[in-house]
Amino acid sequence: MPTRAAVSRRRLPSRARVVGELREFLGERVSTAPAILDQHGRDESYHAGHSPDVVVFCETTEEVARTVALCARDRIPVIPFGTGTSLEGHVAALEGGVCIDLGRMDRVVSVNPEDLDCTVEAGVTRRRLNEHLRDTGLFFPVDPGADASLGGMTATRASGTNAVRYGTMRELVLDLKVVLADGRVIQTGTRSRKSAAGYDLTRLFVGSEGTLGIATEVTLRLFGLPESIAAAVCSFPSVDAAVQTVIATAHAGVPVARVELVDALSMECVNRWAKTDYAETPALFLEFHGTPASTAEQAKTVSELAREFGGRDFAWSANQEERNRLWRARHDLLYALMARWPGRKSLTTDVCVPISRLAECVAETNADIAASTSIPAPIAGHVGDGNFHVAFMVDPDSSEEIVEASALHDRLIRRALVMGGTCTGEHGIGYGKMEYLEIERGDGVRVMQALKQALDPENILNPGKIVPFPDQRTILSHVA
Amino acid sequence: MPTRAAVSRRRLPSRARVVGELREFLGERVSTAPAILDQHGRDESYHAGHSPDVVVFCETTEEVARTVALCARDRIPVIPFGTGTSLEGHVAALEGGVCIDLGRMDRVVSVNPEDLDCTVEAGVTRRRLNEHLRDTGLFFPVDPGADASLGGMTATRASGTNAVRYGTMRELVLDLKVVLADGRVIQTGTRSRKSAAGYDLTRLFVGSEGTLGIATEVTLRLFGLPESIAAAVCSFPSVDAAVQTVIATAHAGVPVARVELVDALSMECVNRWAKTDYAETPALFLEFHGTPASTAEQAKTVSELAREFGGRDFAWSANQEERNRLWRARHDLLYALMARWPGRKSLTTDVCVPISRLAECVAETNADIAASTSIPAPIAGHVGDGNFHVAFMVDPDSSEEIVEASALHDRLIRRALVMGGTCTGEHGIGYGKMEYLEIERGDGVRVMQALKQALDPENILNPGKIVPFPDQRTILSHVA
Repeated sequence: MPTRAAVSRRRLPSRARVVGELREFLGERVSTAPAILDQHGRDESYHAGHSPDVVVFCETTEEVARTVALCARDRIPVIPFGTGTSLEGHVAALEGGVCIDLGRMDRVVSVNPEDLDCTVEAGVTRRRLNEHLRDTGLFFPVDPGADASLGGMTATRASGTNAVRYGTMRELVLDLKVVLADGRVIQTGTRSRKSAAGYDLTRLFVGSEGTLGIATEVTLRLFGLPESIAAAVCSFPSVDAAVQTVIATAHAGVPVARVELVDALSMECVNRWAKTDYAETPALFLEFHGTPASTAEQAKTVSELAREFGGRDFAWSANQEERNRLWRARHDLLYALMARWPGRKSLTTDVCVPISRLAECVAETNADIAASTSIPAPIAGHVGDGNFHVAFMVDPDSSEEIVEASALHDRLIRRALVMGGTCTGEHGIGYGKMEYLEIERGDGVRVMQALKQALDPENILNPGKIVPFPDQRTILSHVA
Repeated sequence: MPTRAAVSRRRLPSRARVVGELREFLGERVSTAPAILDQHGRDESYHAGHSPDVVVFCETTEEVARTVALCARDRIPVIPFGTGTSLEGHVAALEGGVCIDLGRMDRVVSVNPEDLDCTVEAGVTRRRLNEHLRDTGLFFPVDPGADASLGGMTATRASGTNAVRYGTMRELVLDLKVVLADGRVIQTGTRSRKSAAGYDLTRLFVGSEGTLGIATEVTLRLFGLPESIAAAVCSFPSVDAAVQTVIATAHAGVPVARVELVDALSMECVNRWAKTDYAETPALFLEFHGTPASTAEQAKTVSELAREFGGRDFAWSANQEERNRLWRARHDLLYALMARWPGRKSLTTDVCVPISRLAECVAETNADIAASTSIPAPIAGHVGDGNFHVAFMVDPDSSEEIVEASALHDRLIRRALVMGGTCTGEHGIGYGKMEYLEIERGDGVRVMQALKQALDPENILNPGKIVPFPDQRTILSHVA
């Protein structure tokens, strides 16, 4: 069951004493107000929240380091917090402890236009970064749904609709400033574009969900804003036909910037919501970046490929208003779903499979849903990466429905794993998917546990997430 | 001094006994012939070789796992060997032990055209893979100079001329089968394009130079062969003008596939070698991949940008013979240098800096060379990544010249680090650059040591490379 977690709060030496010590260097930026604690223990998921004992609002790396060092002394859990928009219970303080809110670390430290990179503090959100960059002609492409912080996006290895062309946080983080479990501070890399200098610490911390260290500064790759952007939408007789078009597009070397699959049920919701009259069949939403000539050529190539696979009504435009109208349908999808089923909330899955298995994975999932539940379950996905979401529209007050959707999610993950996929393409493990990580990676999880123990031997960093902390015996018999 | 290494051979329990046990499952594929031992202890660098005690030729992952398990039992060092083309003493058996030659693991396990990926055994070389792929319309782009094995390229995080467009081994390895220090076998990932499932074990093993595990199978991203390839060459009044053109090209979003800087001295050697009459000034060699229309457009854009920075004689062609003629100058550069200074060998550096500092780094290095040595030192580089090579053409029998070149290399690395760069863009650390890793990463090296100890607690995997093995006290006081 996804919301289960082994919770046992650690005994703080004395909350009053710890709060007093934190106040010595953080002043009034230390809170034990119940509303603040509650807000910092829950994310946007359906997983149960767990409040920390204290929330601190750090403004510098030094403050984070000092807070962590203080907690290390007394084995107090430390949980970093960005915008709280994670989806697998990442910020829940399962064993209590100190939550470090990084939201006030929101300075853009430097922008290096010649190098196409920038360094930001962990609390800067992706929209704020792009607003900051507006006059430079540069942009940062990773776009998870929420306006998440770049520290949080680093921690969860976030991606989104642009990943097919520009990569995910895995590819786009160049360097990190990280506070380690004992309060020491390191840089994980350099600003150079490539390096063969030792173990890839940057990639080790990207996606580690605050369990190995706390990133306080993030150096990111940037891109020049394309001279021309064209958008397109196309209807298909089946999900398979849409996926075959995407595969052919990749083979033809067309550098699509975005290619999103939206299923028939979702298109029906879109039409109701936006008063549009799209065909209520599976559709692809596409975006092309380049020069005016190259985006036109890309759109032409894809429209021809789509036609071969039965695609119809291929509509494209480089005009900004037209583009926005086309893409609004995709961007507003979650609102369209919530309007279609008022009062329901989305329990969202995010498996990723090799693209050759994607159509089959979607078809089997749809058949499973049709045979076993009446919960509405529209599908949309980042089809270029083989990553898709089922939005199980559950009644949040019905534990029966949550159990039912969770069982379907369980079968979906197992199906994806058999196909060579992963249980999570972009949301992460948190405490919601730990059992699936074990199934997916087997002995690889033993290696992860050895890494966790090596870098956080007292298990103070976001405990209870990603992997269970090993007892000494397990490590020695399994890895040593 | 780069060739120094703390060497102390471990005592084998009894070479005869170990050889006997290895023969039980490897038959005649166990060698102690002096010529074989010698060949397996040295790479293509100027660093001193160190022979292993035994060489085994494994043909399956199970054989590798059994060999490692046997060595783990007796704390015998294990060194993986691909083609021996590394450049920092990576394969030297500093403490003796068993060398595992993976060259016979040369099967292409699977090619998945729809997914644009393939899985190969570690001994498959990059040229053999591309020959195998020829009929599929796909290719694998990473091209270090040598025809290295894909296992070795994974171990050193190799790159080359295509990295600016397609990425390095860091970006292009999807999954690995790895034999751990105790002989267990794991997959580090899945075939899915993206994943947010736990720590990034794939990236941890890529670039770990056989010190954390031995990769026996590698799953790689592939690309469709471009419909059109165009090549260009252009002369510049200065390195700075060439670099400014590259920066402007990146900003304009031109997706150059290759962009190589060759300095005036190198161009002079090229003209002598190939009987060409290029201007003996700094030059850029470029390659564009795409449709015929898009490569023509890319070439036009770059030629216009080059002109703005004083570039002259911009010559481009999409004709294959013309292209080959243009690029031969770059490809044959090392031969041109060796022909120019017969009997001398190249001591090659590979720093990488943010591109905004590249021209300055090259200029200061040239000034340093001019002021302090008569050793010829032509420069060429993967300028799109900020990565460049100085080829110090030393007399290999002159320890004075090697010391002189090493001192210049030392100053070059320190210069690059001050500029936000790295001591190695693509060759790796081996035992030749360990002191520079320490300077570059500081406490990051303590983290690397903790990782090494966690995954190889008995220090049997390629000991003496990347980081010194920590003693227990160091780890506890620094990281715990």
